[in-house]
Amino acid sequence: MSSDISLKILSKSLGCTVLVRLRGGKLLRGILQGYDQHMNLVLEQAEEISDDNTAQKQLGVIVVRGDNVMMISPAVKEGE
Amino acid sequence: MSSDISLKILSKSLGCTVLVRLRGGKLLRGILQGYDQHMNLVLEQAEEISDDNTAQKQLGVIVVRGDNVMMISPAVKEGE
Amino acid sequence: MSSDISLKILSKSLGCTVLVRLRGGKLLRGILQGYDQHMNLVLEQAEEISDDNTAQKQLGVIVVRGDNVMMISPAVKEGE
Amino acid sequence: MSSDISLKILSKSLGCTVLVRLRGGKLLRGILQGYDQHMNLVLEQAEEISDDNTAQKQLGVIVVRGDNVMMISPAVKEGE
Amino acid sequence: MSSDISLKILSKSLGCTVLVRLRGGKLLRGILQGYDQHMNLVLEQAEEISDDNTAQKQLGVIVVRGDNVMMISPAVKEGE
Amino acid sequence: MSSDISLKILSKSLGCTVLVRLRGGKLLRGILQGYDQHMNLVLEQAEEISDDNTAQKQLGVIVVRGDNVMMISPAVKEGE
Amino acid sequence: MSSDISLKILSKSLGCTVLVRLRGGKLLRGILQGYDQHMNLVLEQAEEISDDNTAQKQLGVIVVRGDNVMMISPAVKEGE
Repeated sequence: MSSDISLKILSKSLGCTVLVRLRGGKLLRGILQGYDQHMNLVLEQAEEISDDNTAQKQLGVIVVRGDNVMMISPAVKEGE
Repeated sequence: MSSDISLKILSKSLGCTVLVRLRGGKLLRGILQGYDQHMNLVLEQAEEISDDNTAQKQLGVIVVRGDNVMMISPAVKEGE
Repeated sequence: MSSDISLKILSKSLGCTVLVRLRGGKLLRGILQGYDQHMNLVLEQAEEISDDNTAQKQLGVIVVRGDNVMMISPAVKEGE
Repeated sequence: MSSDISLKILSKSLGCTVLVRLRGGKLLRGILQGYDQHMNLVLEQAEEISDDNTAQKQLGVIVVRGDNVMMISPAVKEGE
Repeated sequence: MSSDISLKILSKSLGCTVLVRLRGGKLLRGILQGYDQHMNLVLEQAEEISDDNTAQKQLGVIVVRGDNVMMISPAVKEGE
Repeated sequence: MSSDISLKILSKSLGCTVLVRLRGGKLLRGILQGYDQHMNLVLEQAEEISDDNTAQKQLGVIVVRGDNVMMISPAVKEGE
Repeated sequence: MSSDISLKILSKSLGCTVLVRLRGGKLLRGILQGYDQHMNLVLEQAEEISDDNTAQKQLGVIVVRGDNVMMISPAVKEGE
């Protein structure tokens, strides 16, 4: 079955910049350093960004508790 | 029993465009690349769309955490 | 004990039109094609309807994640 | 211990009219046909009622998902 | 350890009037007839009361689903 | 590992005044009489207080359901 | 797998100042004294701070229940 594909995507994104949309609306960008099956995430050089992708607040290294995560995506470059 | 029918529908939708309504109201459209029994989803060429089905924001590949999913449907074509 | 009666009602409703009230207020109508013990539902010819039962949006086939379901009922005909 | 008393109350209410207060505020009245340990309920001749106990909407037979239930009571007659 | 003290307090309150504060703000008063480890409660002669402890609505016997309970206390008499 | 430190702090606070911040904003002060691993709490001489630490409502003995607890702290004295 | 990286980050932060963003928006700063796999946290010299990092309220030692935690980060110094 295709049940491991979420973790495979996360695995391929290790060391890459990802966007993380949280419940409640916050949008984070950072380099994915780790994750687990609950979607707890560790991001490096994390920053809170606005919906037009401009940085608003530097957060450094953060641990995000998985049950606040709504969706995760490899960062899309401008114009893509 | 009919207990596997949700996963059967998702299975048949692999590689097809689906609409995903999230809790809180967001509506996503993308090509279903994977799912698991928690309804964690992987969508490709995902985009956030408005209620009249026009694209609002390109998201690329996304992993959606299942507990944010309200409902999923194969995309309905205009006029259907 | 009477613990299986919910599933029995759903079983008897297979192939019939049901109304599904979701948390947050949305009201769906569709033909019940499947369900499981979490009340995940598959509806065919689903439509979002308003509180006076007029259709507002065609949804086609949908998978509804059970934890968004508030209540389910066989569709009541006008005037009943 | 007194741990089964909730189910005992529900058991004694089978076939009787009950009031069900849902999270979010809705109030239902109907004849209790079944329940389980999650407080999933089946009500017959169910109706949504307002806080002064007047019927607002006929619902027929409904299955209520237990985690939406706030409290259940045998219907109190007017003037009690 | 002191892990059973919540249930011990509830046990000592059987047959006594308790106040129950629900999530969302409702305040109930009634005679505690039963409870279980989920804090599902059975109250007799229950009434919904306002914050100044005046009765607003008679509820009779009610079953309260535990996950709606915020806190429970033996009723405090006026002036205490 | 340091996994038991929360319970150790609570254990050391038995018999002492603690402040409990609940989800939704309520702030309680009382003498901690017991707790368990779910952070269900028993407080004695409990009172609801405002953010400037003045008592607003006497609650007596209360059982607080753990999943409403946001944080707990030994009471900080004025000026600390 | 990289599933333990969240706890590794927390482990490395023991004895250091961390920022904790809670669900609902509160922001805490304190010295991390302990944590467990639920992300229950013990902070010392904790203070509630505003979004521009100025202290608003001294909290002393606090136990934070993990399911209120949105994200945790080692404190970022001004200008970083």
